[in-house]
Amino acid sequence: MKVDNVKGTRDILPDEMLLKERISNIIKSVFKKYGFVPLKTPALENFETLNAKGAGGEEIRKETYNFTVKGKRLGLRFDLTVPLSRFIAMNPQLQFPFKRYQYDSVWRYGEVLSGAGRYREFEQFDIDIIGIGSVKAEAEVLSATVDTFNKLGLRDFRIKVNNRKLLNDFLKMCGVKAENYKNVLVAIDKLDKKSVEEVRKEIMDYGINKSACDLIFKGLNASFKDLKLKASEGYKELSELFNIAKLYNMAAFLDFDLSLARGLDYYTGTIFEVKVKGSRSLAGGGRYDNMIGLFSGKSIPAVGISLGIDTIIDVMLNKGLVEKKGSDVEVFIAVASGNVYDRAVEIARKLRDKVKNIELELLDRSLKAQLRYADKKGFERVIIIGERDLQDGCVVVRNLKNKKEERVKITQL
Amino acid sequence: MKVDNVKGTRDILPDEMLLKERISNIIKSVFKKYGFVPLKTPALENFETLNAKGAGGEEIRKETYNFTVKGKRLGLRFDLTVPLSRFIAMNPQLQFPFKRYQYDSVWRYGEVLSGAGRYREFEQFDIDIIGIGSVKAEAEVLSATVDTFNKLGLRDFRIKVNNRKLLNDFLKMCGVKAENYKNVLVAIDKLDKKSVEEVRKEIMDYGINKSACDLIFKGLNASFKDLKLKASEGYKELSELFNIAKLYNMAAFLDFDLSLARGLDYYTGTIFEVKVKGSRSLAGGGRYDNMIGLFSGKSIPAVGISLGIDTIIDVMLNKGLVEKKGSDVEVFIAVASGNVYDRAVEIARKLRDKVKNIELELLDRSLKAQLRYADKKGFERVIIIGERDLQDGCVVVRNLKNKKEERVKITQL
Repeated sequence: MKVDNVKGTRDILPDEMLLKERISNIIKSVFKKYGFVPLKTPALENFETLNAKGAGGEEIRKETYNFTVKGKRLGLRFDLTVPLSRFIAMNPQLQFPFKRYQYDSVWRYGEVLSGAGRYREFEQFDIDIIGIGSVKAEAEVLSATVDTFNKLGLRDFRIKVNNRKLLNDFLKMCGVKAENYKNVLVAIDKLDKKSVEEVRKEIMDYGINKSACDLIFKGLNASFKDLKLKASEGYKELSELFNIAKLYNMAAFLDFDLSLARGLDYYTGTIFEVKVKGSRSLAGGGRYDNMIGLFSGKSIPAVGISLGIDTIIDVMLNKGLVEKKGSDVEVFIAVASGNVYDRAVEIARKLRDKVKNIELELLDRSLKAQLRYADKKGFERVIIIGERDLQDGCVVVRNLKNKKEERVKITQL
Repeated sequence: MKVDNVKGTRDILPDEMLLKERISNIIKSVFKKYGFVPLKTPALENFETLNAKGAGGEEIRKETYNFTVKGKRLGLRFDLTVPLSRFIAMNPQLQFPFKRYQYDSVWRYGEVLSGAGRYREFEQFDIDIIGIGSVKAEAEVLSATVDTFNKLGLRDFRIKVNNRKLLNDFLKMCGVKAENYKNVLVAIDKLDKKSVEEVRKEIMDYGINKSACDLIFKGLNASFKDLKLKASEGYKELSELFNIAKLYNMAAFLDFDLSLARGLDYYTGTIFEVKVKGSRSLAGGGRYDNMIGLFSGKSIPAVGISLGIDTIIDVMLNKGLVEKKGSDVEVFIAVASGNVYDRAVEIARKLRDKVKNIELELLDRSLKAQLRYADKKGFERVIIIGERDLQDGCVVVRNLKNKKEERVKITQL
């Protein structure tokens, strides 16, 4: 029988998983410091929820895994935000603000670029603040993000910031009609991946005339202070955010960028995206004040950010900030002959009590084979249990890096 | 729009998630001490893999979520063992023994008993040792399990142990034909949930005659030393395991039980199950030496155990070993008036640097409303930032448990 992974999915091996554990623990510890608590929503949602108008929008709808099981149309979540909104709508007893984190898998049936690390099943680490309409919530989310990336040691990260209301007012000023805002934003969002010409063509295909298009591309590079949209609600929100950012000591990390659009339909206000030079987006998010109301009828403001942990690890590996290691075993216990297995078990037990990660030989291999194995697995130290040494109450401790050996009393281990 | 969870799935709230994090971290730390490393296989598998003959078997096949996406028949994993076996088969470069843990969701379309905590999407915490055919591997898996339950404080847990080869030899002795072994074992496995009469009927429905059936039920309660099957390979394996158990200082936790069958098809040797008095199974596993060969053609021995983390938490809650708490925020920072927000941000920043979990008031509520909120969320301490206190370089620290307040210098916080 020929077996394989489902296309677009992959197995994550111990060397990468050990990194993921380490990095996700750092992220989690920062989020906890900001008062976020964990929530877990299920992978399976009713397709109706995932497909709701105002949730992901047309682009993501096409990528949503959906299928019928015993007559029910189900789907796998494509993000952690829509399920959170569904949860909030179903739980009116919650005390606001509700600040939660979730680190979990999501599924998108998109183009597979495994070389570029794009999969159909991948993980996101999200934080969201529900129930706060003011820019103070954006500031907390961004400050937690800044602390996280600093803690990870990614010193050259930048956060692009923009605002959907500002973008809409900008498009209006350029002569775009309201019914075309979404289409044009989705097109602008592709400027990262496509050429200006391609994006221009896409915009004009929506019936936007050349002069409007020229105004759009001329205006997209404007700096914040040169913007002519001082009356826009979005401009006011961003001004306030940039002021609060000084209090949080994070203003230097934020770059205004009018061309930042974010692909998802549900954003309503400030939006943001984290990058390091030359990288894909490491994190992205923003305010989405209408989605919960869509599910519950009762409007509740919300803002959040989603960290792409795979991309973060890729970047950290490329920069040499971390390295892959296949094991976190600290000591391998080698058994020089079968009749010392009893004592080896006893020594393993004692060392494990001292919170060491120990692998014990269980295969009765030759000592040579055991040492070769320990080397291949990347273990650093081997304790060799031999009959003659045991008679003196000793074992041999071998350092596999420098090949040095030392005879040590068992009581001194 | 009416929204709901998919039937059989649920949202796990912060109070339960905080417990899950704490308990899964304990389990993980013990597994690491035994040299297990993390691996992550995807949720989606080709249905052909999950449905392979010799994998889950008929009972689990009926419960496997499966569906067609763009012409491909996919499924959601029903356990973590079949995907692991698929992974091992696909990766001949691996060094054996390969010892991995995985903590992840699995899906089974079974009867939903939400009152009894039975869901269709739930989590398992698995360890497996691949590449060791001797009982030494069972001993390591069981020792790690014993350490885990001791570390969790579940002092009265017991591990039932049996062996599929021994069971087959027992059934042969009772006059059951080999082609009926699996059916009879699946029936015996239900003795936990069904009456003896129901199970007897099920066995007789497979064409087993009354005298064989009587012999089965008479023999199932035999103690290990009274067994008449001393020549069985399974008996020898268990004898050796019980001897090694003494070296590991865990013999007192193991109970031989010939009626333990385990429902899944793939077990080939020793099997085990962890319980506390009156509980459902907290963990279960065993040896499955044929499954990897099924996928790769090359037979590789394997043994593992799967911990049901939800049941473990239920039992620990019932015993009062842990309690639910909705938040792990240590300090809430209340803002007595709008114009001290700047200083509140600054104090929050400083305390977060000291690795405290801090929630900062962001809603401009009255101080009374803020204190009520902090109380409802279960926070223990509040730092109240007030204009007049700030003039003296002070804040008020309020203990919400005993309602005591203290005026503290900011520099002393």
